[in-house]
Amino acid sequence: MEAKANGPKEEESRIDPPTNPMVTPLLSDLYQFTMAYAYWKARKHNERAVFDLYFRKNPFGGEFTVFAGLEECIRLIANFKFTEEEIAFIRASLPETCEDGFYDYLRGIDCSDVEVYAVPEGYVVFPKVPLLRVEGPIAVVQLLETPFLNLINYASLVATNAARHRSIAGKSKLLLEFGLRRAQGPDGGIGASKYSYIGGFDATSNVEAGRLFGIPLRGTHSHAFVSSFMSLDEIMEKSLQSSDGSSTCEDFVSLVQAWLSKIKWSHLSHGIFGETNQSELAAFTSYALAFPNNFLALVDTYDVMRSGVPNFCAVALALNDLGYKAVGIRLDSGDLAYLSCEARKFFHIIEKEFGVSNFGKMGITASNDLNEETLDALNKQGHEVDAFGIGTNLVTCYAQPALGCVFKLVEINNQPRIKLSEDVSKVSIPCKKRCYRLYGKEGYPLVDIMTGENEPPPKMAERILCRHPFNESKRAYVVPRHVEELLKCFWPGSPDKAREELPPLMQIRDRCIKQLQQMRPDHVRRLNPTPYKVSVSAKLYDFIHFLWLNEAPVGELQ
Amino acid sequence: MEAKANGPKEEESRIDPPTNPMVTPLLSDLYQFTMAYAYWKARKHNERAVFDLYFRKNPFGGEFTVFAGLEECIRLIANFKFTEEEIAFIRASLPETCEDGFYDYLRGIDCSDVEVYAVPEGYVVFPKVPLLRVEGPIAVVQLLETPFLNLINYASLVATNAARHRSIAGKSKLLLEFGLRRAQGPDGGIGASKYSYIGGFDATSNVEAGRLFGIPLRGTHSHAFVSSFMSLDEIMEKSLQSSDGSSTCEDFVSLVQAWLSKIKWSHLSHGIFGETNQSELAAFTSYALAFPNNFLALVDTYDVMRSGVPNFCAVALALNDLGYKAVGIRLDSGDLAYLSCEARKFFHIIEKEFGVSNFGKMGITASNDLNEETLDALNKQGHEVDAFGIGTNLVTCYAQPALGCVFKLVEINNQPRIKLSEDVSKVSIPCKKRCYRLYGKEGYPLVDIMTGENEPPPKMAERILCRHPFNESKRAYVVPRHVEELLKCFWPGSPDKAREELPPLMQIRDRCIKQLQQMRPDHVRRLNPTPYKVSVSAKLYDFIHFLWLNEAPVGELQ
Repeated sequence: MEAKANGPKEEESRIDPPTNPMVTPLLSDLYQFTMAYAYWKARKHNERAVFDLYFRKNPFGGEFTVFAGLEECIRLIANFKFTEEEIAFIRASLPETCEDGFYDYLRGIDCSDVEVYAVPEGYVVFPKVPLLRVEGPIAVVQLLETPFLNLINYASLVATNAARHRSIAGKSKLLLEFGLRRAQGPDGGIGASKYSYIGGFDATSNVEAGRLFGIPLRGTHSHAFVSSFMSLDEIMEKSLQSSDGSSTCEDFVSLVQAWLSKIKWSHLSHGIFGETNQSELAAFTSYALAFPNNFLALVDTYDVMRSGVPNFCAVALALNDLGYKAVGIRLDSGDLAYLSCEARKFFHIIEKEFGVSNFGKMGITASNDLNEETLDALNKQGHEVDAFGIGTNLVTCYAQPALGCVFKLVEINNQPRIKLSEDVSKVSIPCKKRCYRLYGKEGYPLVDIMTGENEPPPKMAERILCRHPFNESKRAYVVPRHVEELLKCFWPGSPDKAREELPPLMQIRDRCIKQLQQMRPDHVRRLNPTPYKVSVSAKLYDFIHFLWLNEAPVGELQ
Repeated sequence: MEAKANGPKEEESRIDPPTNPMVTPLLSDLYQFTMAYAYWKARKHNERAVFDLYFRKNPFGGEFTVFAGLEECIRLIANFKFTEEEIAFIRASLPETCEDGFYDYLRGIDCSDVEVYAVPEGYVVFPKVPLLRVEGPIAVVQLLETPFLNLINYASLVATNAARHRSIAGKSKLLLEFGLRRAQGPDGGIGASKYSYIGGFDATSNVEAGRLFGIPLRGTHSHAFVSSFMSLDEIMEKSLQSSDGSSTCEDFVSLVQAWLSKIKWSHLSHGIFGETNQSELAAFTSYALAFPNNFLALVDTYDVMRSGVPNFCAVALALNDLGYKAVGIRLDSGDLAYLSCEARKFFHIIEKEFGVSNFGKMGITASNDLNEETLDALNKQGHEVDAFGIGTNLVTCYAQPALGCVFKLVEINNQPRIKLSEDVSKVSIPCKKRCYRLYGKEGYPLVDIMTGENEPPPKMAERILCRHPFNESKRAYVVPRHVEELLKCFWPGSPDKAREELPPLMQIRDRCIKQLQQMRPDHVRRLNPTPYKVSVSAKLYDFIHFLWLNEAPVGELQ
């Protein structure tokens, strides 16, 4: 016992606490504590229970989900321990009749007796198959229900949302998460940045998420910056050294003005614009002086084609004279398909007229309430956008703001338990289970199958019957080319057993991208996707239906 | 200067940091830092700017919004200071060409030069009227944009959502927030608990929110608790002392069984149920032994009327024998209107049959995906529910998961600034402004009016012209019975000026409830509410349109 007690402690010390310090054993529903007390009072608290964490329906009308949030769950249990202050608060929150011994019990618990088997973070997952199988003393495991659901529901939802946006935008586009200001609270924002990155986004605007997770950061300026300027007279320091340091332009402002005039009177662009907005020109010039290597301008404060784009080009050409290459423009309003095409045409005119090579390939970023539908519409209309900044719809998961993971008791003291419901989709699948993904000869996953814990695992090249858990007519024989066990041990409950490492974020992101590529395309497409099959073994099927009939009351029609 | 520097520091020290330790000056978009650098580089960083924080459209198809999140904003600015580690991270995130002097500048800044005028938290507010007016050095105020929007958008959204649920449920019902597990991340959950309470909820299941904010906690047990029991044989300790301590029932289990049999064979309830589920009966009995004073049972694990309610009544009657009063039942599935009425009928049968006074008034709590529509449908069908537990739809604001507050520059160096847009509703209202609420003779607020800062305030009993800011034909004379200035000083930027206190949460909640009661009912009703009028003074109207014409380019039709 001594060795065991020390063992996990040492392991625990290697796992950081949850990212958000507010994630503690108290981030839970009161009923977990009232139940823990009732279990304790009934001397049931150490009965060994198995709970499955799973969802019943893929979000966003799709047929796949990206699993995320596991690392934060493991961080919680690795550091699960009540402080005296927390125990005092629980005591104050429960009825006075509760016995003191319970608080001594709480004081002593940690998660060294708990086992967590889970699908690796970043995997593509499907309804009914457990994402986590949590086993341990019932009172302790019960206390994990609420924080686990909280940490996984939103994480998986937003990772899935990001993956869907990526799938529509295509691999070649840069996807930027811009949602912090509209997120549901501070770590609604921080979580969105982290899990959007897992789902395939490239960068975030959220500085704190960059600091915490090493996610690349992006951002330039807003409309306020543009309207904070009045005129070019405001610019005091006008000199700019050339990129290679060989010379200095003493009056960059005049250089910009000269370029604006050249563009205006050039043969090809003549008539496209008249007088551009001078406060905008001043803002762009000033921004370029501050960031000559990173000049990206928001061009829609006044009028994209009659002011923003010509002003941008004047500054970009002036920078070009000094050996700097402008990064591009951002459009944040209006008809993004039309404006991006017009801007692209204008950039090509500049390239042709002034012989500036690659000017036509200038980056175009688009933002403003983008979502799956607008990305799809842009694709259909044709656009010239290289990078999309997506905020509100991504981070709040506007199209479906909640995923409904549940945490159900499936076994206690080796006795399988089933939760019935008049709605068949809500009946739980009993027993401590193993879960496998069977792959076909094309390399695609064909079906996930759940079996009883002690059944022999499916074998490569060996025929196995896969049954729908509730519909007796749905079944299929499968000869897997490859069998993958889905639930891996992330928290062993004993120091002797091996534990899966928690990989760095970038690796989880790569895994997610690879997983999505591996899926048969019709499962992950946006319109009318094909449901992926989820099944149980013949033996488990029979057992479910035996238990079901045993538990369900026989109705009486009157 | 010395005195000034000390003054605010002393005041600051009295304000706690934000509730979530992740709310720091880095919880911001990268572009706030790139802009700050560009302002600094252009020697513009200390120019005095005024920004308005406001929204453009009420959420949920309604005509009102509850303002919340202010206290967290004030906590942020009272403690706004970069650590060396944060500065190092900003340096690593900006281009290498950025000058060192900027980081010294960041090191030195705090919010002692910033002024925040705001509507008090818990007020009912309307589109276009600033919720906050933030004035200060432009680079510093710019850094506040993202965290302020993050802290206010969701807070106001969920407080409004809670107020709407309260309005449909009616004053007499108990409203419980049960959303932690489905919330958008950990403080999506904690924020939901806090701001639902402000919006009129009575309690939460979220223990950490209870600890942080003193919100009343509620919770009993889940389906897992029920299915963790097999039979009454499991109950080892069967004795229960009577409520007054005068006697002890040695076998409470047998007492429960005797009552179940009496109910089953009683004249009035005969035929309603046959054999009830014994694991459920064991769970209820066990829970009652743990919480004899707080017995509330979840009755839908197997069958509400054929198992859950009879089992509950047996335990409740056994408790009654020992002087305890059961609290009631919770329904978490099925037809809540029908089941609550059937359960109520059954309770009345028990009261009548066994002469237990008030048994018919047993509490009935309902949960399961409740939202505005289902509450409304329950009201129309007729129900017997006393308390509603609302989760997902409340905390994720499922009907509209984001509020679109914006933060717009309205003045810099005493020069008014306007942000134009082809969409008139997106044109900003320029100038540093004052805002008033004008009340009519019935006591209802009639209209909010914005004026230039130096205009004389509207006076009681004096006629004033209120103009729609953008529609010249919409205007009305108002003779206010009472005039209230809306923007109050919460952060004075100088120690000499008075500052509004940050009231305790309960006081904000009371204020919100009072504010909603004070509104003319047609503004706050759910179906076809009347828009509340928001206006500008005649002088401000003229000025807006002068600036607008001045800034907008004249189109050319080709």
